[in-house]
Amino acid sequence: MRERPRFMALATAEITTSNDFGPAVGLSCRECGTRYPLGPSFACIECFGPLEVAYTWSGPDFDGAAPVTREQIAAGPANIWRYRALLPVPADVAAKPNLAPGWTKLVKADNLARELGLRSLHVKDDSGNPTHSFKDRVVAIALEAARTFGFHTLSCSSTGNLAGAVTAAAARAGLDACVFIPADLEEPKIVMASVYGGRLVGIEGTYDEVNRFCSELIGDPLGDRWGFVNVNLRPYYAEGSKTLAYEIAEQLGWRIPDQIVIPVASGSQLTKIDKGFKELIKLGLVEDKPYKIFAAQAEGCSPVSAAFKAGREVVQPVKPRTIAKSLAIGNPADGPYVLDIARRTAGAVEDVTDAEIVDAVRLLARTEGIFAETAGGVTVGVLKKLTEKGLLDPEAETVVLNTGDGLKTLDAVASGARPTAVIRPSLDAFRTAVVENS
Amino acid sequence: MRERPRFMALATAEITTSNDFGPAVGLSCRECGTRYPLGPSFACIECFGPLEVAYTWSGPDFDGAAPVTREQIAAGPANIWRYRALLPVPADVAAKPNLAPGWTKLVKADNLARELGLRSLHVKDDSGNPTHSFKDRVVAIALEAARTFGFHTLSCSSTGNLAGAVTAAAARAGLDACVFIPADLEEPKIVMASVYGGRLVGIEGTYDEVNRFCSELIGDPLGDRWGFVNVNLRPYYAEGSKTLAYEIAEQLGWRIPDQIVIPVASGSQLTKIDKGFKELIKLGLVEDKPYKIFAAQAEGCSPVSAAFKAGREVVQPVKPRTIAKSLAIGNPADGPYVLDIARRTAGAVEDVTDAEIVDAVRLLARTEGIFAETAGGVTVGVLKKLTEKGLLDPEAETVVLNTGDGLKTLDAVASGARPTAVIRPSLDAFRTAVVENS
Repeated sequence: MRERPRFMALATAEITTSNDFGPAVGLSCRECGTRYPLGPSFACIECFGPLEVAYTWSGPDFDGAAPVTREQIAAGPANIWRYRALLPVPADVAAKPNLAPGWTKLVKADNLARELGLRSLHVKDDSGNPTHSFKDRVVAIALEAARTFGFHTLSCSSTGNLAGAVTAAAARAGLDACVFIPADLEEPKIVMASVYGGRLVGIEGTYDEVNRFCSELIGDPLGDRWGFVNVNLRPYYAEGSKTLAYEIAEQLGWRIPDQIVIPVASGSQLTKIDKGFKELIKLGLVEDKPYKIFAAQAEGCSPVSAAFKAGREVVQPVKPRTIAKSLAIGNPADGPYVLDIARRTAGAVEDVTDAEIVDAVRLLARTEGIFAETAGGVTVGVLKKLTEKGLLDPEAETVVLNTGDGLKTLDAVASGARPTAVIRPSLDAFRTAVVENS
Repeated sequence: MRERPRFMALATAEITTSNDFGPAVGLSCRECGTRYPLGPSFACIECFGPLEVAYTWSGPDFDGAAPVTREQIAAGPANIWRYRALLPVPADVAAKPNLAPGWTKLVKADNLARELGLRSLHVKDDSGNPTHSFKDRVVAIALEAARTFGFHTLSCSSTGNLAGAVTAAAARAGLDACVFIPADLEEPKIVMASVYGGRLVGIEGTYDEVNRFCSELIGDPLGDRWGFVNVNLRPYYAEGSKTLAYEIAEQLGWRIPDQIVIPVASGSQLTKIDKGFKELIKLGLVEDKPYKIFAAQAEGCSPVSAAFKAGREVVQPVKPRTIAKSLAIGNPADGPYVLDIARRTAGAVEDVTDAEIVDAVRLLARTEGIFAETAGGVTVGVLKKLTEKGLLDPEAETVVLNTGDGLKTLDAVASGARPTAVIRPSLDAFRTAVVENS
C-alpha cells in the first residue's frame, strides 16, 4: 500500500452533475481496481493508488465491439477529437472553444536513420501543437473535465510547457488561469505562460516542491473550484497522452511500431502510450503484435533509469540538475509503472548527459530540419545510445518522440548556434570571411 | 518601364532540363506579358518587370476545365501538397524530403470578434508551420524548383523567418544552405537559422542592403548554382503564398471571405493571396463574389501605407525602424501591386505603432490563446484600427492572418509578461502575494 498523499481529494463524488464523459464509465484504481464515479478525484480511498478512467471496454466482460471504426476516425477532424469516441469527452467536444491540438506530423526520418544505422525511423513531432508541446493534448481533455465539473479556474504545477498550455487553453475557453512553476525556468516559457493573461506564480523551489504546494492548495478554500489539470483532474488529463499512441498507429497505416523511445518526466505519458497501444489491439483497430517501449531520461534527473539499471522496483527520488528542465521531475509519480512497462515489453530505460542532449538536438536539426526542445535531445540522444549499445534492433520499425520546441530552450544550443560570420555587404568581404574560411 | 536591376539574371533558359513543373507552362512578365520558358529567372528582358508562373489556365483561351476537383483536394495530404495540381511542382512532390508545411488552423475567433465588435472573424494561424512561420510554404515550392534546376545550395536574403525556413528545408532535403540576414536580428531567429547546420551570414546593414548584396552574388561565380529562393527562384517561391488563399477558402467551406487583413513586407504574399482567390473563382472551385483586401504595415516601416493614404501610385523607400522586424522591408518590390489591389477591391492600407503592435499581440493571446509574432500584432492591430475607423464592415465575414510565432519575438512582450509573483511554496505566501493583491 502506498503512503497516503497528505492533501488528497478523496474519491467521493463530491460534485455530481449531469456528467457527459462519452465512453468513460467511471474511475478505477490502478492498484486495487476499486471503482468510483466520474469526479474530480485522483487517488483511491482504499489503497491511495492513482485513479484511471475506465471505459465501456475496460473490463474483462467487454463484448469486443469497438465504439468506432478506422473509417470513422479518418473522417474526423485533423486533431485529437478524431479519437473522441476513445476519450473521456462528450461527442460535441470539438464544438466548444479549445486549442484543437494533435494530429502532429509523423516525420519519416531517413537522414537520421542513415546516420544512426537504422532501417526505418519516424519522429513523432509534437512541437507542431498550438503551444508547441505535447501538453496541449492533455490540457484539452482536462479543460473539458473542468467545464463539466463547473470549475472556474484552470491551474497546474508545471516545468514550463504545461503552464503555457494551460494559460492558452484557459484564455480561449474563457476560464481564469493560475499556474505554478519553479522560479528558475527558461525565459521563453515564462513569457509564454504570462502572455495569455492568466496569473503565473513562480515558486522558489524545485518542480517537486511546486507540486506539493499545489496538493496543499487543493485542500484549502483558496483553491475551491479550481481544476488542477495534473492533480485533481489528473485521471482525465493523463488520457490525453493516449492520442500520441493512436496517431502514431494511424499514421503508420494502422500499425503499432516495433519499438518506440519516449521521454520520462512523471512517467505518465509513457504509461498512457502503452495503454493506447493496448486499447487499439483490444478494440481490433490494429493487429496484435509485440512492441518494445524504451524510456529516456536526462542523466541529471534519472531516478527511473537508475532503478532500471540497478534492477530495483523502487524509484528513489533525486534532486534534478539538468538542462532538460521539462523532464526535471525528481520524484516521478509513475516511475514504478515505467519500470514495469520497460521490463514487460523487453525495452529499457536509458539516460544521456547534458552534452549528449545538446549534440542530439543539433543532430536532429541538421538531419531532419526539426528543432527540438532539450527533451527531444533526450529521446534522440537515448535512441543513439541504445542503438550503439545494441539494445535497439536496427532492422525494426522505430519511432522516437519529440515532445517540445527548440525555441523554448534556446540557451541550450545558443552558444554553438551563431552566424558563420558578420560582414559588410560586399562580395570581397563574403569571399574573405566565408568562402575562404569554409 | 522599371529601372533595370543591376545584377539581373536574364530570363533566358540558361539551364534546360527535363523540367516537370506540373501545370506550369512558362514564366510571364507581370508588366508586359512577355512569355519565357520555365527557368531560374525573375525579371523580364523587355521591361524589367517581375516574372510570374503561368499555368494552363492563365490565358484568356482557358477552356474552363479545372485541373482538380474539391473532392480530390480534400482527399490529399494535410499540407500544401493537397493543392499540387495548382502549383508549379511535379505530381510526386510530396514523396521527396521536404517539411510538408501548410494546412494550418483557421481559428474561429469568437472572443476576439466580441471584443472588437465583429460578427464573424477567423484567424489564419501560420505559426503552426514546421519552422513556425508562413515562410515554410514559399520555401517548399522554391526547394522543388532548386532540385529541378540542379542547384546545390539554397540561399536567401531574410528578415529572419525565411532564414530558418531555408536552412531547415535544406537540411531535410540534403542541400547546402547559405543564408543572409541583417546582423541585428532577434536572437531566437539567429539561433534557429543556425541550428540546422547551414551557413548563416550576418550583414551589417538593413534588409534592403542584404537583398542588394544577394542580387550581386547571383551575378558572381561565387553564387554559381545557388538557388536564392526569393531572388532567382522568386517566381516559384512566391506561388507558395497562394496556398494561404486556397486553405482559407477550403476551410471556410469553399468560400472566399468578404474581407481579409494581410501583412505587407515585400507585398508578395498579399498579391499572391489575391491571385489565389482569383484562380479559385476562375477554376470554378468557389463562387465568384467580391472581396476586400486590407494591407497592414508597422508605422516604423510603412511606405505602402503612406503611399495609399497620400493617393500616390509610387512607393517611396524608407529606412525601417520597428519591432516588427519580419516586416521591415523599406523598399517593397510588390508595393505598387499592393496599392492596386487594395484600391481595386475597395480595401485599404493601414499601419500601427510599435505600442499598438504589442497591445495587439497581447489581445490575441488573451482572447484566443494564440501567441503571435510582432507581424501578427501588426495585422490584429490594423484589424482593430480599421474596425474603429469604420473601414471594415463589422457584419462581414473577416479573416486576419498571423504569419509567425511569438516565441521568435519574445523581447517585444517580455517586459509586460512576467510572473504575477515569486513566492516560497506556502499557502500563506500565496495568500499574501497573490490572492490579496488581485
